[in-house]
Amino acid sequence: MSAFPSYPLFDPSDPVFRAHEGGKLGVHATQPLRDRVDLALLYTPGVAAVSRAIALDPSLAARYTARANTVAVITDGTAVLGLGDIGPLAAMPVMEGKAVLFKHFGGVDAVPVCMETGTVDELVEAIVRIAPTYGGINLEDISAPRCFEIERQLQERLDIPVFHDDQHGTAIVVLAGLINAARVVGRSLESLRVVVSGAGAAGVAVTKLLARAGVADIVVCDSRGIIAPTREDLADHKRRLAATTNPRGLSGSLGDALVGADVFVGVSGGQVPEAQVARMAPSSIIFALANPDPEVHPVVASRYAAVVATGRSDFPNQINNVLAFPGIFRGALDSGAPHITEAMKLAAARAIAGLVPEPTADEIVPSVFADGVADAVARAVGGSDRPASLPGPWEQPMREPAP
Amino acid sequence: MSAFPSYPLFDPSDPVFRAHEGGKLGVHATQPLRDRVDLALLYTPGVAAVSRAIALDPSLAARYTARANTVAVITDGTAVLGLGDIGPLAAMPVMEGKAVLFKHFGGVDAVPVCMETGTVDELVEAIVRIAPTYGGINLEDISAPRCFEIERQLQERLDIPVFHDDQHGTAIVVLAGLINAARVVGRSLESLRVVVSGAGAAGVAVTKLLARAGVADIVVCDSRGIIAPTREDLADHKRRLAATTNPRGLSGSLGDALVGADVFVGVSGGQVPEAQVARMAPSSIIFALANPDPEVHPVVASRYAAVVATGRSDFPNQINNVLAFPGIFRGALDSGAPHITEAMKLAAARAIAGLVPEPTADEIVPSVFADGVADAVARAVGGSDRPASLPGPWEQPMREPAP
Repeated sequence: MSAFPSYPLFDPSDPVFRAHEGGKLGVHATQPLRDRVDLALLYTPGVAAVSRAIALDPSLAARYTARANTVAVITDGTAVLGLGDIGPLAAMPVMEGKAVLFKHFGGVDAVPVCMETGTVDELVEAIVRIAPTYGGINLEDISAPRCFEIERQLQERLDIPVFHDDQHGTAIVVLAGLINAARVVGRSLESLRVVVSGAGAAGVAVTKLLARAGVADIVVCDSRGIIAPTREDLADHKRRLAATTNPRGLSGSLGDALVGADVFVGVSGGQVPEAQVARMAPSSIIFALANPDPEVHPVVASRYAAVVATGRSDFPNQINNVLAFPGIFRGALDSGAPHITEAMKLAAARAIAGLVPEPTADEIVPSVFADGVADAVARAVGGSDRPASLPGPWEQPMREPAP
Repeated sequence: MSAFPSYPLFDPSDPVFRAHEGGKLGVHATQPLRDRVDLALLYTPGVAAVSRAIALDPSLAARYTARANTVAVITDGTAVLGLGDIGPLAAMPVMEGKAVLFKHFGGVDAVPVCMETGTVDELVEAIVRIAPTYGGINLEDISAPRCFEIERQLQERLDIPVFHDDQHGTAIVVLAGLINAARVVGRSLESLRVVVSGAGAAGVAVTKLLARAGVADIVVCDSRGIIAPTREDLADHKRRLAATTNPRGLSGSLGDALVGADVFVGVSGGQVPEAQVARMAPSSIIFALANPDPEVHPVVASRYAAVVATGRSDFPNQINNVLAFPGIFRGALDSGAPHITEAMKLAAARAIAGLVPEPTADEIVPSVFADGVADAVARAVGGSDRPASLPGPWEQPMREPAP
């Protein structure tokens, strides 16, 4: 818990504690309640007519309840930011913050659900049971590898979007950034040698999405080094990575993987020595996304790399999930999509990249506060940004974003 | 589903459907999000400091999250209004309406949780798992007798208020009304012969609370007649009623029970013939609470009874749970009460009754829209309306409300 040295352990007068006083979320009625007439419409007896109509035709719930615009932000508090397993109560401020971002950027009414942790089955059962309340589920800060199986089972059992943002939000924005970084250095995604440091939730998802976008040479490292079929210490999700990545059959340390690599994507927090960074290929791309301490300090990274991105707002090229998740859910809710598909993730990444028509080394992704990001993502995810006569973006070959 | 003949099955142009378009609830941020500075305070990296502080001292969650003012309105949709088991999706408009009332009258941020139904254990497990999210739980429209066991287990396992409004909200407002109705007819609660028609959630709770308030002679009837130990068809909760009510050992029909009765409390929906009403004692009190069709039409009831109340807003004396639940939770949340005790329910009922200093046959309870109802209930429930040197209202003998 020493990762945030600039904040006090507890100081009610500190701006960050003052900003959280009383919590950050409220609930409000969207209809006026002025008198008995309003009361009879919004509650009994009138409400019974609406409930009866939905009982007869469940599709009416999308029109006559808040469900269609409501997303649950669900955690068990086992992997909260850099703090680790701090439990559901301490996770609440993060979930509330996420809900604030959902509303601000995507117009989505998000509500935290902070759960006592348990087995995968226990968590899945509880989430499935409360799922009728929501139009979508954003999983958050659930530890790996449990998060993979929880998400998989929920996607199988529910017909509403289920999206683990630590995985897919990160992957989408990394891909968006990489699309434009590749343009800056004049390379195709297919030609890049990519090293992903970290084989947790984010690392697995980044690897999968980059592969789907056309990156052919990805080497994934965990704290013990390069993930390869020869390693006998691999959990299931890493065994699957070993089978689908590392086409040149490397073994050894992260330092070994970086020799001649074009791209480093850090989602681990482990620091990378400058000497290893120096061994990357010329015109390399470094995404050092650990917060608040990037795996490679951007000043150091800039000595070797042509494009540098971090998760921080005080350096150029902030790779921030908020570029993706509000628009992803906005688009999924508006289009009634029952799932967030790989194709929708690709479309979202390309839409984000497309918002920077002329990417430069200092601008490969739009600002978090840039106008229209969530709208563009929502349109791409919902499929409404393409002529009906053309195939969807997911059926098209990989292409550069339209200028 | 024929109980609401005045509303169309489905008509988008009908005012009740128009009032529900898009749902009735929204979520909003309580803090401004204007720029990167705000973002760093409300979300990463700042939020981590608040989460860390709560992890170190969980009591800080009450101050720095929305939890302390958030109540889950939980149903499985098995007993929704007069509609019965219509499921979680169709129950949503009712839960949203309830949340609107929580906010409007009590300033409580309430969120619906509509669950797939299941066994008592399955529902309890799911609710316990999500409970860290909330400062209190309002159970709603869960069928009897499951509701009794679900509430009991939750109260045992959780240290936040758990309150089944269909039981206790109804009981509290019935008691409030009866306190003042007894004043109108110049009787003590202890002297009244009371007949409760209905042995479901409301009937059981009304019976228990009236008994606790001092009513000594209560006869409960279900659809088969008077509940007595001689009956061999009784479920557990009715067997317990049989053991604790019906002191004169009556048997027979509801009509038999009503002969010479001072009070009729209808929470069943079953119609009572005028001839049976005529056999009640002089200066009787009739609470015919079924909606929208009272067990005895108020015009008929008024031919025989001195005081008549219904659940409807278009007759005097509306017995409406909204007089109780917003203030109950407001008081419990503000005082940090881990449970809603019987003493708090009595205090709430007396507070509501006390808001009508000079009750008359046409005014035994305050209007739903009267100023200060929830505040008065909250103060009574939280215990802040009594000098610290005196025993709480629950340790005092039954008394008339202060004028």
